[in-house]
Order: sequence, then C-alpha cells, then structure tokens
Amino acid sequence: MPQYFSEDASVDAVNARMGEDVSPRLRQVMTSLITHLHGFIKDVQLTQEEWAFAVDFLTRTGQICSEQRQEFILLSDTLGVSMLVDAIGNRRPSGATENTVLGPFHVADAPRREMGVSISADGKGETCLFEGRVLDAAGNLIEGACLDVWSDNADGFYDVQQPDAQPRWNNRGRFTTGADGAYRFIGIKPVSYPIPYDGPVGKMLAALGRHPYRPAHMHFIVTAPGFQTVVTHTFVGDDPYITSDAVFGVKDTLVAPFERVNDGATAWRSPFDFVLVPS
Amino acid sequence: MPQYFSEDASVDAVNARMGEDVSPRLRQVMTSLITHLHGFIKDVQLTQEEWAFAVDFLTRTGQICSEQRQEFILLSDTLGVSMLVDAIGNRRPSGATENTVLGPFHVADAPRREMGVSISADGKGETCLFEGRVLDAAGNLIEGACLDVWSDNADGFYDVQQPDAQPRWNNRGRFTTGADGAYRFIGIKPVSYPIPYDGPVGKMLAALGRHPYRPAHMHFIVTAPGFQTVVTHTFVGDDPYITSDAVFGVKDTLVAPFERVNDGATAWRSPFDFVLVPS
Repeated sequence: MPQYFSEDASVDAVNARMGEDVSPRLRQVMTSLITHLHGFIKDVQLTQEEWAFAVDFLTRTGQICSEQRQEFILLSDTLGVSMLVDAIGNRRPSGATENTVLGPFHVADAPRREMGVSISADGKGETCLFEGRVLDAAGNLIEGACLDVWSDNADGFYDVQQPDAQPRWNNRGRFTTGADGAYRFIGIKPVSYPIPYDGPVGKMLAALGRHPYRPAHMHFIVTAPGFQTVVTHTFVGDDPYITSDAVFGVKDTLVAPFERVNDGATAWRSPFDFVLVPS
Repeated sequence: MPQYFSEDASVDAVNARMGEDVSPRLRQVMTSLITHLHGFIKDVQLTQEEWAFAVDFLTRTGQICSEQRQEFILLSDTLGVSMLVDAIGNRRPSGATENTVLGPFHVADAPRREMGVSISADGKGETCLFEGRVLDAAGNLIEGACLDVWSDNADGFYDVQQPDAQPRWNNRGRFTTGADGAYRFIGIKPVSYPIPYDGPVGKMLAALGRHPYRPAHMHFIVTAPGFQTVVTHTFVGDDPYITSDAVFGVKDTLVAPFERVNDGATAWRSPFDFVLVPS
C-alpha cells in the first residue's frame, strides 16, 4: 500500500516528495522548514478559521508591498527574524562592535564629506557632535575606514520619506578616517519614530499589545579594507523605547553616551569607538 | 541591565514583548509560531542571502494573488499544510468517510438535478456512472442527504477556468437522496491536471524536483441534517499521479473503483458509499 499523507506522518509525506537531484542545502532548508511548520500547526492544533486568517494576512502583506514599502521585511523585523539572521551571520568576539539591523532607509552613495562638518541641512533638532575612533581588536588605529552615517530628522522622518519636505541627503554623509583613525561630524540628537503601522504588520502589533516605535538611533556602516563590515546603530540610552524597540535592534554595547555640551558649538556630544575584526 | 535581544534568547525576547491583554489563544499561537520560526532559522543557520530570497518569494506570492488566483493557498496545499489543518479539524472514527482538500474550484449553488441524469454538458470524455449510498456508521440509510459534486472536463479544466469554452455548470450538480439513501449520476471519468505552475509556487515545485499534477478525482461535498459535513474526492486508482498528488490529497480510503461497463449506457462505473458521523 503506498504511503499517503496522514496527520501523524505529515512531515515525512511532504519531505519524501523531494526529487533526488535537489541541492543538499535546499533539501536541508526545506526539510527543516516543513518539520517546524507542521510542528507549529500540530502544537497549536490550528483551526480552519485561523488558517484562513493566515492566508489572508500573508496576502495583504504581499499586496501592500511596493517600490517604496517592504511589508514582509517589517514582518521579519517585528518577529525578531531579521535580528536573528543578522546575529547568526555576524558572530564576533567580545569587544568587537556588534551589528544590528540595516533598516529600510539606507541610501547608497551619500555625499563624501570632510571631518567635522554638519550633515544636517534642514536646521531642525538639537545639534550633536558624533566622534570617536575606528580601531582593530588590538587597539591599533585604522586609516582609510569609511563611515556611512544616516539618521532621521527632528520630526522623526528620513529624507527619503519626505522628498518634498527635506533637503536631499539631509542627515546623511560618508567620512573617511586619516592616520589618526578618528571620525568627527555634527548631526542632530536623533529622535524615536514609529515604523509604518498602517498595514497588516501594524494591525498585528496592535493585536499583540505592542507599540511600533524604535528608540532614537544614529545609523553607521563602517567599512575598511581587510576588515568585516559593521552595519549598526548607536542608541540614545534614555529613550523611552530603549527596552522595547519594535524591531529588537538594541544591544547593550550599542547604547552610546549622549552628553550635554556647554561649548556653544553643539548641544550634545556622543563619543563612540568602532572596533573591527579581520574579514 | 535590561534584557535585550540575543541569538540565544531570541524566542524569549520576542514573546516577552506581548502585552498583558492579549487573548490566551492568540498568545498561544504566536508563542508557538515564534518558537518554531526561530527554531527553523537556528537549525539551518539561515543566511542573509536566503533570508532575502524568502522575503522576495513571499512578496511575489502575495503580488500574484487576485480575485481569480490564491497563490498562498497553493503554497499551503503544496507544503502539506492544507491537508494537515483539515486532518486536525476532521478526525473521524475508522469506517467514516474521510475528508480531503476542498480545492479552489467549488462553486456554491450548483443546479439541483434528478438522480440518474448527466452532469456533463460538453460531450467530451468517457462517460462514467457514479453511484452508491449515504449511510450512518451503523449502516442505516440516510434520507435527505445532499451531494454537491464537481469535476474537471476531459481536457483537465473546470468550467470556471474556461468560462468561454465550456457550458456553464459543466460537470457540476447537486443531488438529494430519497428513502433508499442512494445516489446515482452520470459524469465523465475525471482526468489528471496540473495546479497553476506559472507563479512562485510552480518555480518552487520545479526547484524541489516535484511535478504540479493532481491525480484524477471527482469532488463531493456530502451534507445531511445532524451529521458532519464531508468535503472529499474519490480518486481514480490507476492514475499515474495517484501516489504523488501535488497537494497530498489522496487517502487510501478515497481511492474508488472505476470499472469498465459493457451495458451501452456508460463506459465506466464508479461505486462508492459515504459513511457520515453525527455532528
């Protein structure tokens, strides 16, 4: 008698159907996916009505996606999936600067700027000096490291979210270290903001009793020849959402000092060193 | 120090974020979903590139959905999820007729017809007499049972897939049993056909070395007052795809006899009794 599908043998029934020429990696990924997907359904004894809701939820999530919006990435972010994949792919020794999520608002090829200048072009917000060094694990200064930085403006929006209301490249820039390994630029003290919550993911967060806010942060991508690229943020530690980031991006080591300054140049100063490991 | 997200504690980090007023069932479902989703990612050590492929795959799956097409249901079907949810929701004692998937081609309110008539209106295919009885588990005949039946035509398409090429209600009808509990109608011996395979799910099947075909089958929904509704098919046992249904719909007990007939009335005869259990 052939082995047809049954509730008890559901995982084997599906996985045994794979062809012989499937690549080992695809076989591994799909076998585990089916095991966990069926395991979930059996654990909770998923009902027909819940299944139909899930089909509709996924369909709505796909249909709201556009050139300007990626709701499945939001879903991944809010379920901790993005951070988990990033953690698995970027394990580093203690002391090395940790990664966090890239986020959807990075724009390639931001203007290259001189050390010390301001990246804020709209005149809004509290000015903040960001400065520090790029080092290797032994404490050696790294010359020629590139820091690609970006943040929201004082209203909580990135320039690309408000192409008509913000100057182009507002709060963005790229800086390259010299022989002293140091970086230094003036931005604003970032502010917290919600991820887009008018779609299926926002409804999900509301149903789960969760808010859509991210704690205030400055984005950095730090690259240097011979070293692993660091994709990260520095966070404002006293932000009300610091322990409840909607996308789980905060790590202890990424909470940076934001200190009041009385030198008349900027209102705040945020020192932070980046420690890179060899690639 | 607050408990931020970490690779090791990823499941707890996400699940601890749920609010206190979340319904117990939603809490149960989401807790299990996160456990299995993160478990899958950790098991296979999912890479950034694979994650990006998954986001794109889900997006394409959502974007091909329309009034006429539900690609997420196809995905559920081809991963054995639809059959598993149906199995969990419709466990029945041995001897009772089993369920299988509804499929996307049912149309409500098919014409009510007299016992013995033909449901085939396009003159194509090999004629087949479908007949049998509707019984309870003790063998008592059930009067007033309704059998809602449908199949593809000899070209492998349902009428709703070819509204211009097939007569309306071709190979569909509803029959109600009398005091003898018997049903009897003439259709065609169904033929195998592929599920839609020009979208993301078809590409997935190809990558997994799987074909998109379903073995030939006649659909039935059998309802009777006081009894559980049976949503099922009867299958043609010698179909080349009988052990490899793309949607895992075949069960041993649903493989029906299809016998050659030499009475000049029909080319085939398929006897099958339905056994219902109380609702």
